[in-house]
Amino acid sequence: MRVRNKPWADDYIRDHQDYIVEDAENWVGKWSERFTKKQPIHIEIGTGKGQFIVEMAKQHPEINFIGIEIQKSVIAIALKKVVAADLPNLQLVHTDGADVDTLFGKHEIDTIYLNFSDPWPKKRHAKRRLTSPKFLDSYKTILKTDAPVVFKTDNRGLFEYSLITFNNYGMYFDMLSLDLHNSEYMEDNVETEYEHKFSAKGPIYKVEAYFNKKED
Amino acid sequence: MRVRNKPWADDYIRDHQDYIVEDAENWVGKWSERFTKKQPIHIEIGTGKGQFIVEMAKQHPEINFIGIEIQKSVIAIALKKVVAADLPNLQLVHTDGADVDTLFGKHEIDTIYLNFSDPWPKKRHAKRRLTSPKFLDSYKTILKTDAPVVFKTDNRGLFEYSLITFNNYGMYFDMLSLDLHNSEYMEDNVETEYEHKFSAKGPIYKVEAYFNKKED
Repeated sequence: MRVRNKPWADDYIRDHQDYIVEDAENWVGKWSERFTKKQPIHIEIGTGKGQFIVEMAKQHPEINFIGIEIQKSVIAIALKKVVAADLPNLQLVHTDGADVDTLFGKHEIDTIYLNFSDPWPKKRHAKRRLTSPKFLDSYKTILKTDAPVVFKTDNRGLFEYSLITFNNYGMYFDMLSLDLHNSEYMEDNVETEYEHKFSAKGPIYKVEAYFNKKED
Repeated sequence: MRVRNKPWADDYIRDHQDYIVEDAENWVGKWSERFTKKQPIHIEIGTGKGQFIVEMAKQHPEINFIGIEIQKSVIAIALKKVVAADLPNLQLVHTDGADVDTLFGKHEIDTIYLNFSDPWPKKRHAKRRLTSPKFLDSYKTILKTDAPVVFKTDNRGLFEYSLITFNNYGMYFDMLSLDLHNSEYMEDNVETEYEHKFSAKGPIYKVEAYFNKKED
């Protein structure tokens, strides 16, 4: 999502450094220090305007959440929500989520959320999709061994690609829905801004995938 | 699919034994003898009224096709189509497709088609679904190592279940479509009777899955 440049963004980000990190590389392996409690860390790559991560942080005080977003004008909007919510378990990171393996230590993360990621529909751009094998390498590095990638999209082509990629990478599917909003999983669903707007136009797809087989 | 009893079925089947096999157990490992040419064998488990397998046999004279169906009244209708088509590369088998590993020799088969299989929607009936792990064991036994299971359905619940099952079994996905009739794969699609009737009501799902990773 592209939004218009926000002239106030620079000042607003500078004035709220308790809620947002701009020097992510200095926090590798010690992200827990950004929070009042040491507890599992869930990250969202491409957090957009922040509705999902803020609501998740409200609903799950027992988890620390980090929302990563590269676009300054977008993360500034998310930051307004974060400041208003004033939660001890929520931080934003203004950086490129594509470099996620350089931002976190090995096995530092307990869940990765990918919500409505850029589909990059052209075949020659497949490597840029956040579910391509190169990114899965990164996710595997920073995730705990029993931790999932939780992926939601309304883009059929991206979901087809991602199911094949996850599967052929050797990941295990735990839950999978081809119409989330008409499924038993809807009860626990936390919507993104985009999802709220587009779920009427067609199905929302969701999968939870693990790099290691869960013990029964 | 259940159809009304066909009083003519017994006689019709008895009169056309060149096209239909009722003693499948006597042909294990030597199914090629039922055809004029020795060439790859593709089977459809649950062939219904036969539209798919007849059309496939017409389009692919280089392949021998076997359609398996347990219901006599249904396979009798398929048999009429087979007799009318009079193809040297098409046979029907009147038996329970659930016992497929007792009907074919090890690695005798080059492709298995599952088209609009019974969804058995109740959880306690999951084992009866033709994509459950017990059936995958059978398919793995009779398929050549580089041969796929090709599965098509309009039933969302069954497709979700099957993707998870194939995935957790360790199968590899080659193609996957969440809306076959609006995809690039439609060009080669051969419809079943059911598919023709129900594709307007919602998406048709399709996956091709292999027990072994294909060499690139």
